[in-house]
Parts: sequence; C-alpha cells; structure tokens
Amino acid sequence: MKKYQVIPESKLNLSHFDPDDTGNHKKTDKSKEKANVITEKLIGRLGELQERLYANGNRALLIVLQGMDTSGKDGTIKSVMSGVNPQGCKVISFKAPSAEELNHDFLWRVHQKAPAKGQIGIFNRSHYEDVLITHVHGLISDSVVKQRFNQIKEFEELLSESGTVILKFFLHISKDEQKKRLEERINNPEKRWKFNEADLEERKLWKNYLGAFEAMMAATSTDQAPWYIVPANRKWYRNLVIADRVVKALEDMKLKTPSAPAGINFDKLKIE
Amino acid sequence: MKKYQVIPESKLNLSHFDPDDTGNHKKTDKSKEKANVITEKLIGRLGELQERLYANGNRALLIVLQGMDTSGKDGTIKSVMSGVNPQGCKVISFKAPSAEELNHDFLWRVHQKAPAKGQIGIFNRSHYEDVLITHVHGLISDSVVKQRFNQIKEFEELLSESGTVILKFFLHISKDEQKKRLEERINNPEKRWKFNEADLEERKLWKNYLGAFEAMMAATSTDQAPWYIVPANRKWYRNLVIADRVVKALEDMKLKTPSAPAGINFDKLKIE
Repeated sequence: MKKYQVIPESKLNLSHFDPDDTGNHKKTDKSKEKANVITEKLIGRLGELQERLYANGNRALLIVLQGMDTSGKDGTIKSVMSGVNPQGCKVISFKAPSAEELNHDFLWRVHQKAPAKGQIGIFNRSHYEDVLITHVHGLISDSVVKQRFNQIKEFEELLSESGTVILKFFLHISKDEQKKRLEERINNPEKRWKFNEADLEERKLWKNYLGAFEAMMAATSTDQAPWYIVPANRKWYRNLVIADRVVKALEDMKLKTPSAPAGINFDKLKIE
Repeated sequence: MKKYQVIPESKLNLSHFDPDDTGNHKKTDKSKEKANVITEKLIGRLGELQERLYANGNRALLIVLQGMDTSGKDGTIKSVMSGVNPQGCKVISFKAPSAEELNHDFLWRVHQKAPAKGQIGIFNRSHYEDVLITHVHGLISDSVVKQRFNQIKEFEELLSESGTVILKFFLHISKDEQKKRLEERINNPEKRWKFNEADLEERKLWKNYLGAFEAMMAATSTDQAPWYIVPANRKWYRNLVIADRVVKALEDMKLKTPSAPAGINFDKLKIE
C-alpha cells in the first residue's frame, strides 16, 4: 500500500505510476478470481468494523474519490461499499455548485457534508474539483489555486483533529482505458444513457488534467490525509487496494465494544 | 400483504393484529431458513431495482419505520438494506429536535430530508414521533394532534404527487417480546451499551403508546401513503414482509433502462 501513497512535500510524476499495475497478483483470470475472494472477505470485515464505528460514535471516516471520467468512482462505491449498513454510511456526490453555494467559499457546502461521528462518509468527487476543473479551464489564477491548497489542508486538519480519519483515492486509469470505457458506453445500447458528450471535450484536456492532479496531490497529501494513487485499469485490483486500505484504517482505530452506560446496577435491574 | 395494510378512514384495533404472526410460514427453524432464502433473493432483486431507480432519476421511494423501543428498526435496516448501493440509499435517524429545529414547524426538518429523485430514503423514526411522544406525554392538545394528522397527510400528498412512493411500516412486537429483548441487553455484557434506562419508563406507558399508534395510523393511512402493521416478534418474518413490499413498490414503478441522450449520432461517434 505504501508504494501508492503520495509523499507529502515532494514532487509527483504520475507517469511513474502504472495504471495497469496489479501488485503481487498476475494479470490472469485466475488471479482476478483469487483477488475477488480476498476482496469479499475484506468487505465482510468492513461491515463488522463499520458496526463498531457506529456503536462507538466517537470517530468518523472520510473517503474521498477522485479520478478522470469513467475511472470508476461509482463502480468503486457499488463494489466496495454495498454490504455496509447504509445507516452508518453516507455517500455525497458533488455536482456543479448551485447559485447559493457559489455565493459562499468553496468549502462551505463541503463542510456541511463532513461525516458525523460514527459514520463513514464517501465523497464522490469533492472539494478537490475546485482546484481541478477551475485550474484546467483557467477559471482561477495560480495564486488562488495555491491559496486553496492551503485552505484544503487546514480544513482537513480540522476534521482530522476532531476525530475523522481521511483517506483520499485517485483512481488512476490510462487514456487508452478511458477510450475503451467510453466506447463501451457508445456501442452498448444498454449503457448509452451513461454517455455524456461533454466527457469527450474534457478528454481532449487529458494532459492538463494529469498536471492539475499532480500539483494538487503533491500539495495536499499529508500524513493525516494522504492521497493514494490507485491503479484502476483493472477494476478487481482497484477494489482490492481500496477495500484493503479502508479496512486497515478502521482496524487502526482499535474500536472496542462500547462500555455499558454508567450508574446502572445491571444485576439488580428487573423489567416489569 | 393486503391484510397488514391499515384501511384508510376506518377504526384500528391493534389487538386484532398478532405480533407473532408468520403468515403462511410455520413457526419452525426449517421454515425460518426457507423464508431467509426468499428474503435473500428479494434483497438481490432490490439491489437491481435500486440501480434502475438511480439511473432513471425521476422517482423516489420513502420508507418510514416506526415502532416501540427494541421493535427492530435498526435491525430491519441492517438486514434488508445492507446490499443496496449506499450511493442511492440514505438513512435518516431522527433524534430529539435541536433548538433550531424547535423554532420551526415540526415538518421543517423532515422535508429537508425527503429523498431526492433517484433515491431510496429511509426514515428511522420520523415526523410521526411528533404525534406519538408528544401525544402520550400530553405535550400537545388533542386538537393539535388532529391538526398534525392533517398536516402530515398534506405533506405526504405533496411528496407523492411529486413522484415519491411512500411506504410506512409499524414494527409490531408484543410487550413480552420487548421484555425479552430488553433482558437480552441487560444480561449480555456485549449488548449493555445499547441499554437506555429511559426505555423502562416508556415501557410503563405501553398501552398509551398503542392507543397513540392506533389513532395515528387510522388517521394517516392513505392509498398513496399506506401504513403496514408488520408482525415483528420474529425477525425473519419481519424482514421477509418488508423486503417483499419494498420490492413490489419498485417493480410497480416499471422502471426501464433510461434512454440514450438525444441528438447524438452514436454510430458516427469516434473517440480520439
């Protein structure tokens, strides 16, 4: 896992990260099956740990998902988080900000959606869009981009100091893989509804987006809120890496069964 | 299912509904296992239908769960809804209102949490608490109770006319069953954290609560937003009944794969 983590305060070059990487697993159908079995077990464990997180109600987990179009943000949530009790898991899909939201600073709407104690919060896109799209399309100046990097770090520090563990995943696909996935949407009539013509325009800016992602992750990966570059060409490996990291984060909280309410003599309690 | 539905505009007597009922199923371990297999299949189907609800994004489903303490509201959500993609399913647990919420009408905070189009919303407790606790403890007058019944009906009519299907489940347990469940919490050190001494005080008001539930369901069960009295002494039967009803509601929406975006010549589309 460590090798996918973006080192704080260092330069980042995404071309050193292979989107097709499958770690110690071979790129065969057989190792895919094996990996899926491990992932299933991790998901089962995730369900247990989430119950305990909820019961304790003193910590929270925030998962941020970013990536190019078709990189598998929705698919990750479906594959890794279906099975978790929805009572303790909230997914927030950030769309283009509303007129009201635009009348506030860019973290205003995000802060409201931070996970409550006891909860897992998943940001499907996030405040990071405000240093990506805006940056690539030149809507904000370089100095504002830098300012926002700092504001994001301070915001995440606040959450972290308040008991929220933060994991940020960049789903790393290759440009060829995106082509395949877009073609699948175009050629399969059952999937055409997912097709968005605007994605083709954004695809033309692939290199600019890569650069923006690099700058953003280099500037905002911290020990408390690290970025992970997840090889995401193969969905099964992507799911495995993320399930593994999420389970580890919850294990590290060392959550116990909550203690009984104080001041009650349970042995003498009688129910009429 | 029909036999559990509260008929609009008619008197309701909960003593005619057996909390121990298991329908056509025997009360044996073997039929429990069989029922669980059916429930599992229904939950799988629920997952598929929810994906389609989300994809279409033009309808919503609101599930309201009410019942005495320990009646299994949390357990129902965990058993029936784990497996659903959390991206399309939001659970709202209504607690005692905040000072700000109390400065508004009782539906203000509830309306904000109504499920968006494409979503399943689950209310774990709901606006109905405001005609239950308040009624039983004499905090509001009979005329205000009646007024609120009407306000609730009009509110739910608004949601319904706006494309939201509403299902309301009363989890019906016997007083003896509650005793068992409270004792389990007391006697099992692993479960003691769930114990709330206030539940014992509310238990003393069992009959008053039954009366309040009867009045409330009789007054607010409508064709668009029916109440169901779910026999809930046996968790496996409770889960089966609810999973069955929820799947039927989604099937009735006749959701299809959404159509492709208009104005695109898919056959000529090329990706660079």
